[in-house]
Amino acid sequence: MSNKNNLKIIGLPAPVLIIGSYDGEGNPNMMNAAYGGICSADPLCISVSIRKQRLTYKNIEFTKEFTVNIPSSKNLEAADYFGMVSGNNGNKLKICDLNIVKSTIVNAPIITDFPASLECKLVKLIEVGSHMMLIGEILGITKKGDDNVSLNEFDAVVYDLNTNTYFKIGEPAGKGFEIGKMIIEKAKTEERK
Amino acid sequence: MSNKNNLKIIGLPAPVLIIGSYDGEGNPNMMNAAYGGICSADPLCISVSIRKQRLTYKNIEFTKEFTVNIPSSKNLEAADYFGMVSGNNGNKLKICDLNIVKSTIVNAPIITDFPASLECKLVKLIEVGSHMMLIGEILGITKKGDDNVSLNEFDAVVYDLNTNTYFKIGEPAGKGFEIGKMIIEKAKTEERK
Repeated sequence: MSNKNNLKIIGLPAPVLIIGSYDGEGNPNMMNAAYGGICSADPLCISVSIRKQRLTYKNIEFTKEFTVNIPSSKNLEAADYFGMVSGNNGNKLKICDLNIVKSTIVNAPIITDFPASLECKLVKLIEVGSHMMLIGEILGITKKGDDNVSLNEFDAVVYDLNTNTYFKIGEPAGKGFEIGKMIIEKAKTEERK
Repeated sequence: MSNKNNLKIIGLPAPVLIIGSYDGEGNPNMMNAAYGGICSADPLCISVSIRKQRLTYKNIEFTKEFTVNIPSSKNLEAADYFGMVSGNNGNKLKICDLNIVKSTIVNAPIITDFPASLECKLVKLIEVGSHMMLIGEILGITKKGDDNVSLNEFDAVVYDLNTNTYFKIGEPAGKGFEIGKMIIEKAKTEERK
């Protein structure tokens, strides 16, 4: 990750987002994006940052809809490939052994081999430095398995922008809204002294 | 995570971002945000989504500067506590045993006990559903250790929005721009047949 200040981000896990879109003729494309994540709780929205010259950007500017396909560690060969080859140079999906179907909710393709796909309608488009930030309202989610799966049961992955490495999810490190209670308890004990 | 469509996001790791800010009198505050991430490569920018009623939002609207402190798994008690208590109800840092100093680059506080802090200048503010998205240009990074540390050497953490659980980083699952080559090779072999 090079930038004018030559800063290197450490310790900040990035997601692995495979963005699905159709061109004007209905040809599907997939690209790998590491910049993005949930950005509103209600309505549920996701942001994804893409460079303007990408085919995906041109496609979504036209169709106003896209998917975010979320890989498990079993899908990383394909996920990484989508980041290596440009859709501007021809259909890159032909050589992949993947099932790609049209979402029933939006005009965008889903990889049914992946465990989850978010179906999004473009609601905002913001220029931020080198990238265009696409804000999508999530209208539906096509997924395998049940709603209560955790990141490690999903076999989710994160991307290390600093070392260009995919990592699996490790051990649980604590429950949210629970481990913080220890500080509140400590403070109460101090007060009593 | 409740929303009008009652959708549950699975398999999408969120970062643990501790946002540092000062109020108009220079009192520091820290909050825990799970919505955000890098959104531009050059200049390097990060987005963070915060609800309008948060003290952090009011502070940054006023100072136009903030920090993003990145915890390791050793800092999770404090990180989680910052998400449990509101700065609107008084200084929540007093009862924490943390070293908090002013950044030398921006008018915002840094937790020096954490392994890395991004020093940001607010460049855009966008309303997205229930949240305000703050875009910060990263002007500097205060960190311990060297620039080449990986996510697992950093002992980084991710948050599972679905099960409200913090997870450590696990095993490497492949190198970026490398494991995807296997699909390109497979295609070449097919062509030769």
